[in-house]
Amino acid sequence: MSRVYNFSAGPSMLPKWVLETAAKQMVEYENSGQSVMEMSHRSSEFKQIIEDCEQRMRRVMNIPDNYKVLFLQGGASLQFTMIPMNLLKNGHADVINTGQWSKKAIKELNKIGKADVLASSEDKTFSYIPNLDDLTYHEDADYVYICENNTIYGTKYKQLPKTNGVPLVSDMSSCILSEPVDVTKYGLIFAGAQKNMGPAGLTVVIIRDDLIGHAKENTPSMLDYKIMADNDSMFNTPPTYAIYICGLMLQWIEEEIGGLDAMKRRNDAKAKLLYDYLDTSEMFHNPVNPSDRSIMNVTFVTGNEALDAKFIKEAKAAGLINVKGHRSVGGMRASIYNAMELEGVDKLVTFMKAFEVENQ
Amino acid sequence: MSRVYNFSAGPSMLPKWVLETAAKQMVEYENSGQSVMEMSHRSSEFKQIIEDCEQRMRRVMNIPDNYKVLFLQGGASLQFTMIPMNLLKNGHADVINTGQWSKKAIKELNKIGKADVLASSEDKTFSYIPNLDDLTYHEDADYVYICENNTIYGTKYKQLPKTNGVPLVSDMSSCILSEPVDVTKYGLIFAGAQKNMGPAGLTVVIIRDDLIGHAKENTPSMLDYKIMADNDSMFNTPPTYAIYICGLMLQWIEEEIGGLDAMKRRNDAKAKLLYDYLDTSEMFHNPVNPSDRSIMNVTFVTGNEALDAKFIKEAKAAGLINVKGHRSVGGMRASIYNAMELEGVDKLVTFMKAFEVENQ
Repeated sequence: MSRVYNFSAGPSMLPKWVLETAAKQMVEYENSGQSVMEMSHRSSEFKQIIEDCEQRMRRVMNIPDNYKVLFLQGGASLQFTMIPMNLLKNGHADVINTGQWSKKAIKELNKIGKADVLASSEDKTFSYIPNLDDLTYHEDADYVYICENNTIYGTKYKQLPKTNGVPLVSDMSSCILSEPVDVTKYGLIFAGAQKNMGPAGLTVVIIRDDLIGHAKENTPSMLDYKIMADNDSMFNTPPTYAIYICGLMLQWIEEEIGGLDAMKRRNDAKAKLLYDYLDTSEMFHNPVNPSDRSIMNVTFVTGNEALDAKFIKEAKAAGLINVKGHRSVGGMRASIYNAMELEGVDKLVTFMKAFEVENQ
Repeated sequence: MSRVYNFSAGPSMLPKWVLETAAKQMVEYENSGQSVMEMSHRSSEFKQIIEDCEQRMRRVMNIPDNYKVLFLQGGASLQFTMIPMNLLKNGHADVINTGQWSKKAIKELNKIGKADVLASSEDKTFSYIPNLDDLTYHEDADYVYICENNTIYGTKYKQLPKTNGVPLVSDMSSCILSEPVDVTKYGLIFAGAQKNMGPAGLTVVIIRDDLIGHAKENTPSMLDYKIMADNDSMFNTPPTYAIYICGLMLQWIEEEIGGLDAMKRRNDAKAKLLYDYLDTSEMFHNPVNPSDRSIMNVTFVTGNEALDAKFIKEAKAAGLINVKGHRSVGGMRASIYNAMELEGVDKLVTFMKAFEVENQ
């Protein structure tokens, strides 16, 4: 069949250019006589691949030299443990609770130290980002933690907490590489690759040098940022093929799209197309506070569960797959990450309009 | 160039059939309209892939129903932490030290509990497996730990410790799927995929049901076997593409090779070809106790470092790559995992013979 438009929240679409390049290089990478998957991680060929990937990421995201880029495993979920294991000195961190992924981070943090939850949007099903001006951060907090884009609810921080020098830690799993960010505002950025950066099984951590090296004695080696940094992410075998695909994604962003400014324009255009329709539709409704809308995950409901189910089923039949909302909130969700073409969103909006007419 | 013969210790060769199938299915898997890399891990398409992979592994390895198969991340190195976190009740385990990977396991175990090292072959650079009949296991040890095939030194356990009911835990990273094993003799088997099972970034854990559920309170969720088992390895996003390739490897073993009995015959034949030559060569010498020889990693030296270096360089030029021994032992090593064809070993032996004549 022809390629579907995949609105999955992750793992999610990859650019056709990335897939076609990977297909071409699968049996033999360049002139190496082997697949990337077969390469020793200590070989000069793979070292070139991982270094290129890191350098591209540094260029694309404008990462300063006093930040390390780590290629790890275990997803964002393992970072919920590694972050407190490595960053806690006073034993507590401030957290803003904007959804299920913040809650999971809080739960894991509380196993190691203490999470002080400064604000939460749970009262309205996480449909907004709490007002940051109202918050009082603990001066001796070891860090302030946010989940910057909330995949399930379709919310996004449009400004960052003013933490007064306390390091800001951000889960960027579903917004990394979607727009330029000022890395210097963060102490630590982390993201699972499977939304905007590549395949599942790779986690990228961007960490300021001064935050490395504070893990307690007897911290497991695999969970110690210092050991990972000192070994250039090769303390043990890293997820080599996922790193290679991440490198292709970055090449695509840099060379095919033209960097993160262009990426943002493209992503803004896609989101605008969908939100503009949602704002005029009499059937579909976006439940999120307008100023907190994500440009990566767009949630919508009809208010009628049976109609939602009909929509999801018919969309799938039309090649618009994975538009079902997360089971905790219901309704629909279109994840329109970097790889989704404007054409895909246009097809979705056209389909929604027709559905609205047919089901009035 | 033509495909090289890759004797890397891992990541290592994959069967051409696996790579060609993966290349063909990269842009679109079967009739799904998407790449496996793009599939939601919750989709019916991916569920079929992970279930097929598990069922094939159960068939190929004859895994009883009272064992769980877990697909995890972090490599064997993270298991060095997860195993004691989950299996220790009395706080100590018996370990046999047969090399660098056992030593790493001991180091991580000692951060969480206590390793009682019953025997070690470090006195002779780990060139043998200690006599198991001499050992006295602690009755109240929580488990007995071995590294069954020692990649760096080329040794392999030919019999298992008689642990008198204490669960046996085995690191099978470099021998899993190379021959039939009696899973019932083990409490827990684990292996990084990147040698005999697929790409780096996937770790398989085969664990007996009664060993699950004993992690201490406040164990991080990602490190708790019970949480992984209860969620069928999908507590968070698993390394989906690596699982797909692992499934292809198992399909290759099952359908192209004919299962593990046939795999063993093939692996024995490859190892015999190389060891037979080493036993007659006047230049190359295998330093391992003959009864403890690995059929996966074959180490050899000339006794002359300059000659070793010349051999490694010329072998590479002849398309026989990664024959350099581990830096801790020097010399040469040919890792001849499942995917290595007899032809590749034959080419290596032919090259060694010619080198021996030319450099007498």
